[in-house]
Amino acid sequence: MAGNSFGNLFKLTTFGESHGTAIGGIIDGCPPGIELDFEAIQHEMNRRKPGQSKIVTQRKEPDEVKFLSGIFEGKTTGTPIGFVIENANQKSKDYSHIKNAYRPSHADFVYDKKYGFRDYRGGGRSSARETASRVVAGAIAKQMLNTIQIHAYTSSVGDIFLEKPYQDLDFSKVESNIVRCPDEEYADKMIEKIKQIRKEGDTIGGTVTCVLKNVPIGLGEPVFDKLHAELGKAMLSINAVKGFEYGSGFCGAKMKGSEHNDQFNIDGSTKTNLSGGIQGGISNGMDIYFRVAFKPVATIMQDQTTIDKEGNEVEMQGKGRHDPCVVPRAVPIVEAMAALVLADYFLINKIY
Amino acid sequence: MAGNSFGNLFKLTTFGESHGTAIGGIIDGCPPGIELDFEAIQHEMNRRKPGQSKIVTQRKEPDEVKFLSGIFEGKTTGTPIGFVIENANQKSKDYSHIKNAYRPSHADFVYDKKYGFRDYRGGGRSSARETASRVVAGAIAKQMLNTIQIHAYTSSVGDIFLEKPYQDLDFSKVESNIVRCPDEEYADKMIEKIKQIRKEGDTIGGTVTCVLKNVPIGLGEPVFDKLHAELGKAMLSINAVKGFEYGSGFCGAKMKGSEHNDQFNIDGSTKTNLSGGIQGGISNGMDIYFRVAFKPVATIMQDQTTIDKEGNEVEMQGKGRHDPCVVPRAVPIVEAMAALVLADYFLINKIY
Amino acid sequence: MAGNSFGNLFKLTTFGESHGTAIGGIIDGCPPGIELDFEAIQHEMNRRKPGQSKIVTQRKEPDEVKFLSGIFEGKTTGTPIGFVIENANQKSKDYSHIKNAYRPSHADFVYDKKYGFRDYRGGGRSSARETASRVVAGAIAKQMLNTIQIHAYTSSVGDIFLEKPYQDLDFSKVESNIVRCPDEEYADKMIEKIKQIRKEGDTIGGTVTCVLKNVPIGLGEPVFDKLHAELGKAMLSINAVKGFEYGSGFCGAKMKGSEHNDQFNIDGSTKTNLSGGIQGGISNGMDIYFRVAFKPVATIMQDQTTIDKEGNEVEMQGKGRHDPCVVPRAVPIVEAMAALVLADYFLINKIY
Amino acid sequence: MAGNSFGNLFKLTTFGESHGTAIGGIIDGCPPGIELDFEAIQHEMNRRKPGQSKIVTQRKEPDEVKFLSGIFEGKTTGTPIGFVIENANQKSKDYSHIKNAYRPSHADFVYDKKYGFRDYRGGGRSSARETASRVVAGAIAKQMLNTIQIHAYTSSVGDIFLEKPYQDLDFSKVESNIVRCPDEEYADKMIEKIKQIRKEGDTIGGTVTCVLKNVPIGLGEPVFDKLHAELGKAMLSINAVKGFEYGSGFCGAKMKGSEHNDQFNIDGSTKTNLSGGIQGGISNGMDIYFRVAFKPVATIMQDQTTIDKEGNEVEMQGKGRHDPCVVPRAVPIVEAMAALVLADYFLINKIY
Repeated sequence: MAGNSFGNLFKLTTFGESHGTAIGGIIDGCPPGIELDFEAIQHEMNRRKPGQSKIVTQRKEPDEVKFLSGIFEGKTTGTPIGFVIENANQKSKDYSHIKNAYRPSHADFVYDKKYGFRDYRGGGRSSARETASRVVAGAIAKQMLNTIQIHAYTSSVGDIFLEKPYQDLDFSKVESNIVRCPDEEYADKMIEKIKQIRKEGDTIGGTVTCVLKNVPIGLGEPVFDKLHAELGKAMLSINAVKGFEYGSGFCGAKMKGSEHNDQFNIDGSTKTNLSGGIQGGISNGMDIYFRVAFKPVATIMQDQTTIDKEGNEVEMQGKGRHDPCVVPRAVPIVEAMAALVLADYFLINKIY
Repeated sequence: MAGNSFGNLFKLTTFGESHGTAIGGIIDGCPPGIELDFEAIQHEMNRRKPGQSKIVTQRKEPDEVKFLSGIFEGKTTGTPIGFVIENANQKSKDYSHIKNAYRPSHADFVYDKKYGFRDYRGGGRSSARETASRVVAGAIAKQMLNTIQIHAYTSSVGDIFLEKPYQDLDFSKVESNIVRCPDEEYADKMIEKIKQIRKEGDTIGGTVTCVLKNVPIGLGEPVFDKLHAELGKAMLSINAVKGFEYGSGFCGAKMKGSEHNDQFNIDGSTKTNLSGGIQGGISNGMDIYFRVAFKPVATIMQDQTTIDKEGNEVEMQGKGRHDPCVVPRAVPIVEAMAALVLADYFLINKIY
Repeated sequence: MAGNSFGNLFKLTTFGESHGTAIGGIIDGCPPGIELDFEAIQHEMNRRKPGQSKIVTQRKEPDEVKFLSGIFEGKTTGTPIGFVIENANQKSKDYSHIKNAYRPSHADFVYDKKYGFRDYRGGGRSSARETASRVVAGAIAKQMLNTIQIHAYTSSVGDIFLEKPYQDLDFSKVESNIVRCPDEEYADKMIEKIKQIRKEGDTIGGTVTCVLKNVPIGLGEPVFDKLHAELGKAMLSINAVKGFEYGSGFCGAKMKGSEHNDQFNIDGSTKTNLSGGIQGGISNGMDIYFRVAFKPVATIMQDQTTIDKEGNEVEMQGKGRHDPCVVPRAVPIVEAMAALVLADYFLINKIY
Repeated sequence: MAGNSFGNLFKLTTFGESHGTAIGGIIDGCPPGIELDFEAIQHEMNRRKPGQSKIVTQRKEPDEVKFLSGIFEGKTTGTPIGFVIENANQKSKDYSHIKNAYRPSHADFVYDKKYGFRDYRGGGRSSARETASRVVAGAIAKQMLNTIQIHAYTSSVGDIFLEKPYQDLDFSKVESNIVRCPDEEYADKMIEKIKQIRKEGDTIGGTVTCVLKNVPIGLGEPVFDKLHAELGKAMLSINAVKGFEYGSGFCGAKMKGSEHNDQFNIDGSTKTNLSGGIQGGISNGMDIYFRVAFKPVATIMQDQTTIDKEGNEVEMQGKGRHDPCVVPRAVPIVEAMAALVLADYFLINKIY
């Protein structure tokens, strides 16, 4: 409720500011006896970390996770898993240009109004740095859910839309390029677009599509805690997200019932899947798929006019590092949040 | 967690099946001393109730709320408000055509798989009838939040899209037509569309746009419980919703940062509002606006082939009553859920 | 959090004032498929209800439960169980003597201070009438947990203490007398005591002991949500409770470790059971037993000097009905709360 | 729910095993702008830490807290406060005597049954070491609640009972002796008792009494979340606690209503305070006082016969270090938990 926890029975609580000593979290409720693959966890961290390619922010962070509890002889013990990720990059930066000024479309203004003051050395809790803790927890959730496949990928950058349905894509190619689009032709276009945007000192938005395969029937609660409602909240809690749709999504709002209804096969599967694998808030065994919209990052390398605390107009230089497109690094975050939602419902619905 | 409660400090828990004796709920956490306008509550109920016009389902339900507790001498006491709405229409219907068959794109199949059996006399908890209880609670939340304006309206039906920005609309006209679109010309087209769809025994989807005016700065929590994440979950928990976007939404994913950033005026307001009134998950005092996509209702008056419990293919007749377009009745539900989210954050953030 | 819900996965939310139209509640999370014995539920209600014998309050309430949802063809459906109990006795009483006066050791004063005003027609939410809803939910929880035996009994009234250990008692005799003490000799003394107290227009306190047999190993969480911590909270939430101890309890605080440690038998059971069936917050398969202290009821039939809202000293007559000893009626409430705690942990620990 | 969090709006989540790398926690919901006195925090840590005197366990732990987030320029920021306490003493100990054996009245047996295996290097999460994290959070809560006085003290050790009412004690003397009893004569007797018990290789139980002065009227919720129910749960969640009573407690169960009722003074205070500062679950402005019973520590320096995992009888040597009486170190833990409960209700009831 104070807003830094996610989940009910598989629960992540995170702490840490972007420019403090460290960030980290506690995973409470992870079942005992899961043999952890630490390389796989670090692999997920590497997919999210800054500096991984030329099209993302060049901040340097090794993003190595240090586990402090809840693991014994390589296996989870059922007790809370505490972990810490040190901030390598927290010192010696010059914050004078943002100390008193409110960066446009950042949280600076609302933080000052809500809390009375703020840690001005960057975005603090509103920084995407916090998502590193989510990726740790999501990586563990993935290992708990090893019968489920979770595949996210970049489906658009700016106006470059990968038009193919997910069924025509080879998910094994997502990691073969730096933009994380499984179609090479589109990937090249997207990379080119981001490079150009970066040169302009600007940023660009995009979308991530995510597919969950082999989800058992029966996950989700019928009324307020529908599976897609919880997935939606999870995605909307990621920095820069402006929209969420699943199954037919906004397109479904244009359709007729006779077109939209998914007819059954005799085995209980459906001939079409406009429902997106969820009916009445409960998984029906078909693929769950959804799409998440990311706005362009607010930090740009262009000068902007803004105001300071006292309401004076000030010029703000575009300097430092910036992330021209958040989408490639958002792919593992979307997967992590999906894994957290599924892990929680696995426990709530007593499947694990 | 068992999924029938919404909110933390202003919390609604609902009960009741569409064809049981009654539905109802408990509102826990409503502050004491609010003088209730019972006519205004019933007015909201009437906006949602079936049979209100020719373009919605003709099921007859008076939908009168009976309050059982928490109110004394016309004012809330701070204790839980229990209420009941009787089901007028629960008897004598012939369910034989759906008792064993799974209606396509309904929750029948997943309920049977999840719970082992189900109340086959209709949708049970998955019926939109449950939303009547939300409207009761939302109407009370609205009265608690009487400095805020909550305006929802029908922004599309099928492919008829009201293209005007909300700033150009006169919200006082929303209730002047049965489809709840504040633009008369578009309203007429939408009504015509729904009438035609109803004749075909079909259904059609649409979208609802909602605008929250005069929300104080500082509502929302920075990380997992961002204000828009909670609004998104609230909307996605409404039956038939497939998508949610706020501010620039999916369009924002095509934009550049230099276009998308909302520049400040010296009073702290912003020149543009692509952020949609929320930055870093926290309200910034600008209008909050969002759009919700509704799929077409699954019950159609056309014959469909489906399966029964035993996996036999069966023919299902399209008979009874149907709701050709859920959107006009969804307008007050969207408002109610928005009011519940705001009421909860008012208490969490100690503004009330 | 607004305080009218108990439990996490098996959750009861209650509503209703002592002199309103009705009280009731919602049970959320009850598993589907439980064939309910409605007579057994009413039997529990009758054990709690006023007017059941000469040694309890003579208020007349039939206390018949009306279920509104969540049950189909006699079985739970897994959806929320809404229920209502009408208040027969809510009218025509003369409240003038308590309308403005604060009854000593009642909640009148704090309610006025906390909420600004109160429903002066009795204790409102602070009345023990609210516990009727707990008994309904507890009776259903008992049926869910039918492999566990839950036995509460009156172990003291005033200074009459049943000194025998619970192992020497025949629980089948608890209902054979109106004070609910399984030892006839002591029961007679207790009844005599209460009759005398009633004649004096006074009230008397007492204790209830409760034994839970056949609880599976592994219920409870190691740190904050220890099984006995949750039992303690449950008991302390019952009106008039001033203390809780389990296992060796306060006596254990006088002992040495060498005396107190429960040595193991080779089957994992223990030779003694000073631990009270719980070690490290987790059930160990031995009997769980605890004791609950109830203060004397504050309403007495003697005149008292008190103050009114304005701080004037006023004389308050002792008139109306009073409950000379709450303990006999508290026995089923203690059992109900124990059942609710166990049901919740059954689901949390995935035993059901 | 997974049991490692306490509180709702002021919420502590802890992690860490007694013999792992570190323990720690996250405090979520602490209001912004509190200027922290770090020496005062360390002072509380020192009151709890092992090795502080001859009558407690001689394990060496500096127990220095390292804060990782949520604090900027010495003040809380309103974001989660992450902290870590390194375990100095986690290595090189010989666990062979307890690796497979179940120590009597420890949690070893139930952990193995519940989780399938356990970290055998000590008590893991069931160790009282976890309470160090509670003391950190409690120390911060105390600073938030600086208008309230929280005084706990040792009120009995074994059969040595400090008979004086708390009103006759000088709380400033609690820290003047190593057993934390404000009466010197009794303190000496208690210390002597513990020294003798230590020589015997045995342990002894005792009680802690706690007084909360200057608590504002109106804290607590009327039904399930009564203030004393939450205090009771908090205390019962501390290792080795077997009982809790507040106000008149178990003695109140012997009294008559005419004796027990607290008559009002005209200012709303009461002439007596058998209610213990709480009526109907809500603070009434009088002193809150309660008593907590601690059993003797299970680890003794005497040989015991027990069983191993396979059910074989084994001899277990009493070796290593032991804590002859947990009560002196429990005093700051009781205070910390009381502070956490009050801090949470301050926020829930919007007093802060």
